Amino acid sequence: MHILVSNDDGYRAPGIQALACAMRRFGRVTVVAPDHNHSGASNSLTLNRPLTVEHMPGENLYVVSGTPSDCVHVALTGLLDEMPDLVVAGINCGANMGDDTMYSGTVAAAIEGYLFKVPSIAFSQIDKGWAELESAARIAETVVERYLEERDTTDPVLLNVNMPNLPYDVVKGIRSTRLGRRMSAEPVIEEMSPRGFPIYWLGAAGKPADAAEGTDFWATAHGYVSVTPLQIDLTAHREVERTGRWLAGDLSPKRD
Amino acid sequence: MHILVSNDDGYRAPGIQALACAMRRFGRVTVVAPDHNHSGASNSLTLNRPLTVEHMPGENLYVVSGTPSDCVHVALTGLLDEMPDLVVAGINCGANMGDDTMYSGTVAAAIEGYLFKVPSIAFSQIDKGWAELESAARIAETVVERYLEERDTTDPVLLNVNMPNLPYDVVKGIRSTRLGRRMSAEPVIEEMSPRGFPIYWLGAAGKPADAAEGTDFWATAHGYVSVTPLQIDLTAHREVERTGRWLAGDLSPKRD
Repeated sequence: MHILVSNDDGYRAPGIQALACAMRRFGRVTVVAPDHNHSGASNSLTLNRPLTVEHMPGENLYVVSGTPSDCVHVALTGLLDEMPDLVVAGINCGANMGDDTMYSGTVAAAIEGYLFKVPSIAFSQIDKGWAELESAARIAETVVERYLEERDTTDPVLLNVNMPNLPYDVVKGIRSTRLGRRMSAEPVIEEMSPRGFPIYWLGAAGKPADAAEGTDFWATAHGYVSVTPLQIDLTAHREVERTGRWLAGDLSPKRD
Repeated sequence: MHILVSNDDGYRAPGIQALACAMRRFGRVTVVAPDHNHSGASNSLTLNRPLTVEHMPGENLYVVSGTPSDCVHVALTGLLDEMPDLVVAGINCGANMGDDTMYSGTVAAAIEGYLFKVPSIAFSQIDKGWAELESAARIAETVVERYLEERDTTDPVLLNVNMPNLPYDVVKGIRSTRLGRRMSAEPVIEEMSPRGFPIYWLGAAGKPADAAEGTDFWATAHGYVSVTPLQIDLTAHREVERTGRWLAGDLSPKRD
């Protein structure tokens, strides 16, 4: 059993160290992680410059000058001498729920593994600050353990796990969920730089718009671990036919 | 009618200039675009530093020190004095089809508009080099024209348009498609830097794995414009119940 561990907070983050440590129980662990924090990196890939990779053999750690997706991509296309049995990403400092999932570098690292047909799981703690990180690592261990028991009967999975920052014994259980939805983001924050020119900070994420029972927002707010199975097909299949009706056809040269 | 134009190739790219020009026929155009090329940026957002914005009133152009998603995000959360009626992104230099759609900054700019409930369309030319850019701009104009004729009867759309680099009169028509799928990416390319340390370039995208009739790959390979309606819910809804069966439950303290 060989497990690839990555994240988006960078290789120094407490979260990835706790996750790598928890995964060692299951077999060989290789860590391939960014050299600095890439929160909000989404699935970005570095296409216009080369990456550098620093190997630290003692911890079987590779530090990459790129994004979370870059890390898993180079690991699976040549850096590792074999395909791993599992990719895990995290433990992220902060939630990756609802629409935010699309912006998450942690989830992107897992998506990258899944694109290479490797079962992949993203782990996030919903509150920042690393409170109850040991509990989160133990939850990650439990999720992986249950997946390993089940894996012969199920397709490669892509799971998005969000964990409340609660002691292990207080967590109520694990819920399989759908992603919730958020309201639109808060306004941009305009400030003046010390040099006298305006600067803009992106506003906060919007409040939950769909946080009903069944969503990731609901589960974590009620003391459960949220596990959302993900898929990566962005096609709106139900719209293809309708779009074809109003849009498709010849390109009539109206202006001629 | 107010149209927001963005891209991922940067504000200087011929593609965005051709697209902005084509859109002026429909009303007021504001361009908010990155200060340099962000190909492969996906939905990445800049969270850890502020953005700067340079306004060039003559062209109604805002140049942003951030990603494509940043550009549309700041435009819609404060930079513009009103919500636009339409967001268009591109014209991208190169295809955004199949699994690549997930990595595309052009598509991400459109997704950002859609998240704010604004109809949004991403435009890409499948071959690089800007050949037949005028034709592509005219196709974009036709797609927008047909959308405007239809918009009272349809929900806000999120469309991913890929255009063959062909003269307008040679293009066979428009097809509504689903995203194809690709094989896994090619191996990482390891080279030696002039300074004597190894560097790694991400390998090329994999060959199409699903390029059957009905896909974007098929349509563009056969001389059609491909229009794929997209959705942004990554939940694997059909897996939620099954995942719940094998994974959910109490956190049994097995190690106690």
